[in-house]
Amino acid sequence: MLLPEKEVDNIIDLALAEDISYGDVTSEALIPTELQGKASILVKAEGILAGGEVAKRLFLKVDPSLRVEVLIRDGARVQPGDIVATIFGSVFSVLKAERVALNFLQRLSGIASQTAQYIAKTHGFIVSITDTRKTTPGLRLLEKYAVRMGGGQNHRFHLGDGILIKDNHLVVLRALSMSLKDIITRAKQSAPQGLKVEVEVNTAQEALDAVEAGADIIMLDNMSPDEMRRVVGLVSGQVKIEASGGITLENIRPVAMAGVDTISIGALTHSPKALDISLELEPQTLKVV
Amino acid sequence: MLLPEKEVDNIIDLALAEDISYGDVTSEALIPTELQGKASILVKAEGILAGGEVAKRLFLKVDPSLRVEVLIRDGARVQPGDIVATIFGSVFSVLKAERVALNFLQRLSGIASQTAQYIAKTHGFIVSITDTRKTTPGLRLLEKYAVRMGGGQNHRFHLGDGILIKDNHLVVLRALSMSLKDIITRAKQSAPQGLKVEVEVNTAQEALDAVEAGADIIMLDNMSPDEMRRVVGLVSGQVKIEASGGITLENIRPVAMAGVDTISIGALTHSPKALDISLELEPQTLKVV
Amino acid sequence: MLLPEKEVDNIIDLALAEDISYGDVTSEALIPTELQGKASILVKAEGILAGGEVAKRLFLKVDPSLRVEVLIRDGARVQPGDIVATIFGSVFSVLKAERVALNFLQRLSGIASQTAQYIAKTHGFIVSITDTRKTTPGLRLLEKYAVRMGGGQNHRFHLGDGILIKDNHLVVLRALSMSLKDIITRAKQSAPQGLKVEVEVNTAQEALDAVEAGADIIMLDNMSPDEMRRVVGLVSGQVKIEASGGITLENIRPVAMAGVDTISIGALTHSPKALDISLELEPQTLKVV
Amino acid sequence: MLLPEKEVDNIIDLALAEDISYGDVTSEALIPTELQGKASILVKAEGILAGGEVAKRLFLKVDPSLRVEVLIRDGARVQPGDIVATIFGSVFSVLKAERVALNFLQRLSGIASQTAQYIAKTHGFIVSITDTRKTTPGLRLLEKYAVRMGGGQNHRFHLGDGILIKDNHLVVLRALSMSLKDIITRAKQSAPQGLKVEVEVNTAQEALDAVEAGADIIMLDNMSPDEMRRVVGLVSGQVKIEASGGITLENIRPVAMAGVDTISIGALTHSPKALDISLELEPQTLKVV
Amino acid sequence: MLLPEKEVDNIIDLALAEDISYGDVTSEALIPTELQGKASILVKAEGILAGGEVAKRLFLKVDPSLRVEVLIRDGARVQPGDIVATIFGSVFSVLKAERVALNFLQRLSGIASQTAQYIAKTHGFIVSITDTRKTTPGLRLLEKYAVRMGGGQNHRFHLGDGILIKDNHLVVLRALSMSLKDIITRAKQSAPQGLKVEVEVNTAQEALDAVEAGADIIMLDNMSPDEMRRVVGLVSGQVKIEASGGITLENIRPVAMAGVDTISIGALTHSPKALDISLELEPQTLKVV
Amino acid sequence: MLLPEKEVDNIIDLALAEDISYGDVTSEALIPTELQGKASILVKAEGILAGGEVAKRLFLKVDPSLRVEVLIRDGARVQPGDIVATIFGSVFSVLKAERVALNFLQRLSGIASQTAQYIAKTHGFIVSITDTRKTTPGLRLLEKYAVRMGGGQNHRFHLGDGILIKDNHLVVLRALSMSLKDIITRAKQSAPQGLKVEVEVNTAQEALDAVEAGADIIMLDNMSPDEMRRVVGLVSGQVKIEASGGITLENIRPVAMAGVDTISIGALTHSPKALDISLELEPQTLKVV
Repeated sequence: MLLPEKEVDNIIDLALAEDISYGDVTSEALIPTELQGKASILVKAEGILAGGEVAKRLFLKVDPSLRVEVLIRDGARVQPGDIVATIFGSVFSVLKAERVALNFLQRLSGIASQTAQYIAKTHGFIVSITDTRKTTPGLRLLEKYAVRMGGGQNHRFHLGDGILIKDNHLVVLRALSMSLKDIITRAKQSAPQGLKVEVEVNTAQEALDAVEAGADIIMLDNMSPDEMRRVVGLVSGQVKIEASGGITLENIRPVAMAGVDTISIGALTHSPKALDISLELEPQTLKVV
Repeated sequence: MLLPEKEVDNIIDLALAEDISYGDVTSEALIPTELQGKASILVKAEGILAGGEVAKRLFLKVDPSLRVEVLIRDGARVQPGDIVATIFGSVFSVLKAERVALNFLQRLSGIASQTAQYIAKTHGFIVSITDTRKTTPGLRLLEKYAVRMGGGQNHRFHLGDGILIKDNHLVVLRALSMSLKDIITRAKQSAPQGLKVEVEVNTAQEALDAVEAGADIIMLDNMSPDEMRRVVGLVSGQVKIEASGGITLENIRPVAMAGVDTISIGALTHSPKALDISLELEPQTLKVV
Repeated sequence: MLLPEKEVDNIIDLALAEDISYGDVTSEALIPTELQGKASILVKAEGILAGGEVAKRLFLKVDPSLRVEVLIRDGARVQPGDIVATIFGSVFSVLKAERVALNFLQRLSGIASQTAQYIAKTHGFIVSITDTRKTTPGLRLLEKYAVRMGGGQNHRFHLGDGILIKDNHLVVLRALSMSLKDIITRAKQSAPQGLKVEVEVNTAQEALDAVEAGADIIMLDNMSPDEMRRVVGLVSGQVKIEASGGITLENIRPVAMAGVDTISIGALTHSPKALDISLELEPQTLKVV
Repeated sequence: MLLPEKEVDNIIDLALAEDISYGDVTSEALIPTELQGKASILVKAEGILAGGEVAKRLFLKVDPSLRVEVLIRDGARVQPGDIVATIFGSVFSVLKAERVALNFLQRLSGIASQTAQYIAKTHGFIVSITDTRKTTPGLRLLEKYAVRMGGGQNHRFHLGDGILIKDNHLVVLRALSMSLKDIITRAKQSAPQGLKVEVEVNTAQEALDAVEAGADIIMLDNMSPDEMRRVVGLVSGQVKIEASGGITLENIRPVAMAGVDTISIGALTHSPKALDISLELEPQTLKVV
Repeated sequence: MLLPEKEVDNIIDLALAEDISYGDVTSEALIPTELQGKASILVKAEGILAGGEVAKRLFLKVDPSLRVEVLIRDGARVQPGDIVATIFGSVFSVLKAERVALNFLQRLSGIASQTAQYIAKTHGFIVSITDTRKTTPGLRLLEKYAVRMGGGQNHRFHLGDGILIKDNHLVVLRALSMSLKDIITRAKQSAPQGLKVEVEVNTAQEALDAVEAGADIIMLDNMSPDEMRRVVGLVSGQVKIEASGGITLENIRPVAMAGVDTISIGALTHSPKALDISLELEPQTLKVV
Repeated sequence: MLLPEKEVDNIIDLALAEDISYGDVTSEALIPTELQGKASILVKAEGILAGGEVAKRLFLKVDPSLRVEVLIRDGARVQPGDIVATIFGSVFSVLKAERVALNFLQRLSGIASQTAQYIAKTHGFIVSITDTRKTTPGLRLLEKYAVRMGGGQNHRFHLGDGILIKDNHLVVLRALSMSLKDIITRAKQSAPQGLKVEVEVNTAQEALDAVEAGADIIMLDNMSPDEMRRVVGLVSGQVKIEASGGITLENIRPVAMAGVDTISIGALTHSPKALDISLELEPQTLKVV
């Protein structure tokens, strides 16, 4: 999906409420409201940009009379010194919006940048890098957008848009004496007609059983690359194969080499490092209007 | 402030809405609604726990009939294998709440754990470690709570609860030909009566000027530890001194040694690594009611 | 999905706000608030019940001290004279909630009843009856729940949980010189990994093309039963086949006989007839407390 | 009251949230966002239009850059082939809004059309056709607007804007040994000064008693046309007379002939048949911008 | 209408959000959370109490474990030293809720007290004292409740529950060459069937014209008591007569003597004096739990 | 802080919802929607204006096509006959917004006017007049804005932006055997770093103790002017001194003479008298468009 505008507006409202519900006592004490000027949003580390349009919406929410020009599109690679956007207008308004705008930009760009690092490690292989549902509460749609900007793809958005039978389901259902075949068969019968059925497997045998039972996708959980390769050899072409669990920048390449279709990585959204981005006012542009 | 209950409820609602607005098609297809059992929330890495009560509230929002016992209080050090909480009741409900509950726990515990790492590095010095306003949009109160659980202290919650004159203010005000003394004097006159005045300084001379002009707190921005020590020697006892900017686990100790009162660190909240925590159902406890 | 509790609560709140925001001037003028009694919700026409639990939630929202017993479960066939539920407690509260509770019950039971009529007409054939997205604004999850109570199944809940390439898409894409094969191929590449691809076709040739291009489901739009039978003969077993468009109680049987897997019917939710249900107070139970 | 704009916006938001919270996976996979074109909203059955401005607001909510021209005003009679409105702009946006816009238009036009059918049956008599509070949860103001567009009038909007003593009130109050005169007298004393007092009666004697006790309006519930005529003869001119209960297209004319002032009909809003209306893209207008 | 619970909850939420969104830094610094005790809400001036149940709801919102006993019912006359309610439980919670609870109590009791003063001035005459729509934004239902507690009655709650043709309407309609008779006739035709028609008049002749044209109520605006008496003599018994405009405690008695049915007073809600009420903790009841 | 726009919008929405959720039956019956004209907002008593921009926002919310010109800025002194603003456009819209707009203007101007009266009484002394947290539920930010417009200053906005140790805290803490020095020391240790510590004292000795213990501000509660003067003599220059409790227009001057820095007055916001302001349509400007 595209950048979700309404979701963006909701979370922007929430973030602004946290920060400026009781005004900005510093600027109110010091900055003349009629002072105008230009500010630049400046990149200070290498990475992939995400959140430029989000930041623009935020500045315009704080003050619709600001003129915001986004100079670099989301998904582009940036270098220290690059200017993401320029903002012209009330200095008071710019300072009020600054921190929250940067908080969005730094987190989303951090996610995009890290996603791109994972993808770079799989260079030469036909494999998708996808996120998971391990996202920050309240930011799911935005974080999944950032993953796409980094070149990744999106796994399920929520518990209603895909059947994924995970370890905890299997533990329960086996305790109820259901075989893997029983489980998958029931899932296929009950699934809404537009949804595929994916199942987590831990051994090559389970993978074969799952395929035979009609799974559309199998997820290889915490397997070694060698095991994965074996499964790929057995079932490739019949179902989609996803690798998952404990995959890092250090160990992703052998997983990609094993021939899986998709690698899903929780760390894309649960542990990104913020990209360093700042806002600088240009004193020579100041004027009182 | 204590754990902000209403804020917690709002963000829990938002996070659940993201994940289960359209149901949980997998469990609905497979898990009998009358199946009951016990689950444990399991720590899988060393750190400081934060979010136990948040997770409990979340499970109870999803299903008020669940019985949730939190076994480890927020702020405690945890080891792999520790059980944070146990949940008894509808397996269906437990699976529906699992991911979002873990998303809260992992992020908040990640922040608390990292805060404790910074504090450990300053062992032996009397210095506070504080957060900044570089928090995740929508999670400010919760993230600042996690910092406290890790042993840190909170800087400003929002733009209305403290005067902090930063570089961008100074750039603007100097362009309007105001001296540092003018600026601080005006801020003190305009400040609401309950608030202190803090100012960012870059040199020892500015620090002296700020103190003379009546600042309550000075923030030393991106100074070397040697410069900081010099400032501390000049003004200690007259004002509170805060160090800020680019402080990492690697370079914090010399900053603490310089004798500042407070060290503020944006990375506490903008780049924590999630603490690995999972939920496991215990098959032998299952029964149909 | 199950009865969506939060959705139910939202729409109950909205419906109560419409009706009792400014009080109930009649009962306030006449009914002693301390008067207690028993009321019954009475079926006055044959059909399938849906909304019993919704009505219960609504009565309890208006007054948590009411005692509501639902005597007939959703999905059951009802006859005139059947008692859906009894309510004990404040007469004042019962009268305040009466109309809105009945509005829910009558509409949802109307939908369930009509769905069951369609299903009865297909007796003897293995075919699913599904709804569409032609639901009343604000009531989608509840109306789709009512369809399930009537024995039907649910098509897409929203535009994000299934790829369905309809006539307007095809008109546009063909104008851009894309073949049906191009279109389906692109959809399959872009589709999130958990979702199937369905395409609307108007002729047997298009159906064959769609199957060859890899569609998971084909929708036969406004075809005659004879044409449908021909398509079924050609592609059955390779894809799922859905019939759609202009299907009524009068013409559904030949469609079912044609051998399609699914018949989708907009009228299930856009034009149901409310089931006649009323509430009656029992004067002999009244007492002042 | 006029078309309630804020109410419209709320229910539009809710309806869009149901349908596009997680994007439109089909159009996102297939329709270039920069593709522009023209669409027409086309009437496919005879009736009365209602909801044109509502649909326009909805399209503009989804995409404020769309150009929507409503060509037929609400309340006008329409024929198959009539074009309600044209929409120019992003094809992607048009497809995203299509279904929900039609859901509003079809329901509201269905209500207006059915209202007009009832009114046509009373041709030649001076009688108002009014709705009831039997409306769809969440849509009351819109549905009552549609009734007016069909030529009908509105009964009470909610429980606070008119005193209406119905059967359940009378059952209770008589059990408390109050006479009809006692009841009406108390209601008149307690009623807010701007509101009239209406009472449901089942016999001519009750009608006379109600008039004598000072009722402003009497509601004849489920009386035969002959009985109604008798009541009209007895009390006409002294109070307003409303007929209610079980009135259909088949039996309304004799009721009108009986001389009542008003006929209220729950089916106007609880069981309308949607008017068939569709949206068609015009391929020859497509262009990429 | 009764005390509007949902309205109360909304405004309580809003008022608490204003005051405790960012915690209570004083109590958090000083008051042990496990400290329990008893507090009393104490009247410090003579008047009529209103808001006791509102205050109770507020304390319970802040902390559901508090035990709140309301000792004096709304509408009762109170003296300095009277105890409105006692609260047992967490001292921390009591202090957090104190100010906002008192803000409600003081304002509502102030309104009730002032209303009672006006009524006392009309002792011996049969006349209603009513409020107007000149209420504090956001508090209308609560303030009108307080008026009732003081013995007053409620005029219109909103612009939809009564036709009241005021001076600005008449200025406009006369400029369009409509006579008072035309205006009232049209209003009666257009009015929803449950609503009466009231018209503002400035002279005895206008009063006569209004009555002749069929007004249900006439409002005498800013007339002298002598003029009012003349109008009463001319039209009493045919319509209800309301006096309005500039009525104070000093001049209300002659207005009441003039024989009008109702006197409406904006100052009841726009300029009440808060009743002095405070909360006192009882140190001898403190204990740590 | 400046006029809080979002807060204003929220409370405007709430106030409009109270008044026009169900339309304006009078104007809908009588005023042609296409009628345009000019209205003036007219001052009818002397005072200080506050709320002009709020009223403008409100009119534009009701109808964005109105042209509203605010002629007098908030904070200006006004006389009977002054025109606050003119509104051009739909007469229907003006009448719909009139009452609620005046309700805001009258209350806020009443607060500003009364604040100015208190300030006038302290003429010749250097002393700030501040408000308290005794504000109307839901209107805190607006009422504190009005205080500033009247020339006053703002005390705490909420319980999180200043430490203020009041009588109830002291009662509790002394019962726990803490000395004033203990209490203040703990508060200073626990206080967030941007906040000052204020303490209520009742005697000169307590004042000295508080200063010695390091309080930043002391509040003299219900002291006589003579006692206040003694305290000022003892501690002036070391801390800020605030007088509070029972201060009226009659007794404020001796308090100001005593030499305190600040006088806080609850009545500024809990018991203002509304300023008389009205809206008048100008019949000669009417035209149908």
